[in-house]
Amino acid sequence: MPEPDGYGLDHLPYGAYSVGAGTPRIGVRLGDRVLDVADLRPELDRPTLNDFMALGPDAWAETRAQVTDLAAADALAATPVDDVRLHLPFAVGDYVDFYASLDHASNVGRIFRPDQEPLLPNWRHLPVGYHGRGGTVVVSGTPVVRPCGQRKAPTEDAPTYGPSRRLDIEAELGFVIGAGSALGSRISVGDLAEHVFGVVGLNDWSARDIQAWEYVPLGPFLGKSFATSVAAWVTPLAALDAAWCDLPGQDPTPLDYLVGPGSPGSEGGGPRGLDIDVEVVLNDRVVSRPPYRTMYWSPAQMLAHLTVNGASTRPGDLFASGTISGPEPDTRGSFLELSWGGREPFGGPGGESRTFLEDGDVVTLRYSAPGTSGGRITLGEVTGRIEPARP
Amino acid sequence: MPEPDGYGLDHLPYGAYSVGAGTPRIGVRLGDRVLDVADLRPELDRPTLNDFMALGPDAWAETRAQVTDLAAADALAATPVDDVRLHLPFAVGDYVDFYASLDHASNVGRIFRPDQEPLLPNWRHLPVGYHGRGGTVVVSGTPVVRPCGQRKAPTEDAPTYGPSRRLDIEAELGFVIGAGSALGSRISVGDLAEHVFGVVGLNDWSARDIQAWEYVPLGPFLGKSFATSVAAWVTPLAALDAAWCDLPGQDPTPLDYLVGPGSPGSEGGGPRGLDIDVEVVLNDRVVSRPPYRTMYWSPAQMLAHLTVNGASTRPGDLFASGTISGPEPDTRGSFLELSWGGREPFGGPGGESRTFLEDGDVVTLRYSAPGTSGGRITLGEVTGRIEPARP
Repeated sequence: MPEPDGYGLDHLPYGAYSVGAGTPRIGVRLGDRVLDVADLRPELDRPTLNDFMALGPDAWAETRAQVTDLAAADALAATPVDDVRLHLPFAVGDYVDFYASLDHASNVGRIFRPDQEPLLPNWRHLPVGYHGRGGTVVVSGTPVVRPCGQRKAPTEDAPTYGPSRRLDIEAELGFVIGAGSALGSRISVGDLAEHVFGVVGLNDWSARDIQAWEYVPLGPFLGKSFATSVAAWVTPLAALDAAWCDLPGQDPTPLDYLVGPGSPGSEGGGPRGLDIDVEVVLNDRVVSRPPYRTMYWSPAQMLAHLTVNGASTRPGDLFASGTISGPEPDTRGSFLELSWGGREPFGGPGGESRTFLEDGDVVTLRYSAPGTSGGRITLGEVTGRIEPARP
Repeated sequence: MPEPDGYGLDHLPYGAYSVGAGTPRIGVRLGDRVLDVADLRPELDRPTLNDFMALGPDAWAETRAQVTDLAAADALAATPVDDVRLHLPFAVGDYVDFYASLDHASNVGRIFRPDQEPLLPNWRHLPVGYHGRGGTVVVSGTPVVRPCGQRKAPTEDAPTYGPSRRLDIEAELGFVIGAGSALGSRISVGDLAEHVFGVVGLNDWSARDIQAWEYVPLGPFLGKSFATSVAAWVTPLAALDAAWCDLPGQDPTPLDYLVGPGSPGSEGGGPRGLDIDVEVVLNDRVVSRPPYRTMYWSPAQMLAHLTVNGASTRPGDLFASGTISGPEPDTRGSFLELSWGGREPFGGPGGESRTFLEDGDVVTLRYSAPGTSGGRITLGEVTGRIEPARP
């Protein structure tokens, strides 16, 4: 029973859905239908995935096998996906955003500090990251209101208050913690699959003018915290078994705690990347194709770094890759890079050109990866429409 | 019935406690006893304050009046505070840490960038802040394990992995959101008391060597995320009615959204500060007395700024002031400043001298403020003992 749209039996992502005025419940997507799995175990009879995710990898595998069997036998109640409302699939705990693309970090360095080395001294030694706002992570489809705040262009004497004039996207991949870890413990690079339940597409909406004025010395704050969109479907890590690939290479070799015995699929060969294709779609036109396989730091390294100081993790914690940008101009994952700091409008022939986002623009991020059955799976898309700033 | 220790009827802070193997329940502290208030309303019959705090200021005032009457009549069951175990009083949502002390920001600038203007250009225009890790906020008394991580001194060629050698405190005040705000809305500077339920003492433990290496360009991350301690007792904002005071003064005048009609107690006079005395106690000896009244940015301005981009807030969100430092050397709220970057050991006569924390050190932060009955109230203390790094 092949599913032509990437939601076949080799995928089976989890989400939270409601029908009519009903309350959210957990479902699994197969093709264009949502399968009702809430009765399979008590932890699935919830409005979010958190309690199920907290059970850990054995329970995830057992339930995945059960859902696969029941779905193949057409033994689960189903609702057309067009008839349901989709909700945030997990209650978000702490949200950490990394900066793991060499090309993205280099581009940003060249744009903002043209006279200096594009990469800062720490970048090749550790996955640079920071905490974002978990409470403003929203599900795909949620409108994004243009944020207001303080902005000061380099040519201006003083900051002014008003709507962001440089509203941007960041095409990213998010990793959802299922089974947490205790305060004082560390998660080794070999233990990603013991803790990460699955992945989601993620758009880290960014107001570049607010960010540029506020971010020294403590990092991005209001330029990011107004909204972060995630896919409605969480792709289980098991569905990405065929997507692991080699990292492009790390020089210098990182410190031991970032190398270790390797991440899932590595079979002892060190931390590995993911061969996931991304498309950035602006108003129905593809404007970029960022390749996740070009990311410098692996997800296992990000998680090992996040916990190396003993920081605990909880079910629903989310960490994201940072903007996915490849080496070619048409593989950049932000408008900041696609327009080279707003200086070169992009997207010309066949559509309106842009430097940053305009009101009414719709951005959709699409993701696909090799599936375990030889074909490809389609991860949940992440879409949002820009609404005008509120007075 | 005066209570000599600052926990009289004009205070009545809330906490979560358990007796023996019992589960946590909500109590109110009066003197050296914990009053059982769980039966007063269903939202208090919980292990944390979140559901009660979500009810908003009318319910907070009503319950405070009821508790005051019942406590005065000795009509509530009570347990000696020495016989209970205290728990984190609220489930922490997003944690934001500001940088609101002019003296602290100036000191840090002078220590790290001695050849430049100590304050960065944005500092007097907005309350600089960033997101910390909500999941590692712990209750006072929780041991703090020395964190490991990457450190690189300026004199070293490459980073090394190991225990932090510059472990520090930051004496701060935390503000607990009770009633949240919707995505896309803003909280004006006049509406602090509609949203903030109360305050807690807060120690933002900091590993300066880890922080110094990691923090460009996205801000502090692992140098902070291993632990943040808060008091076990949340002092209701109403108990601080007599503590509001003028700010030291702001130049230039901030943008309109940071001025507005004023915060609680201002009676139209603009955002106001809090006259709270802080003591930093190292191994039973007072080493500093930071005065909260010297803070440049008011709590109402911090909250207005935090939400000016439309970011939502939730019950249990926490924002903190940043290190409280006054203008005098013996009023600095961090070891970084007390030892001037580790160059000048402090705490000499009468005790061991320190630059940064040693294993076994116990740091306690004490807070007191004018009460509404003419005396002073004692806010819940924040204490923690440094345990050796784990191999």
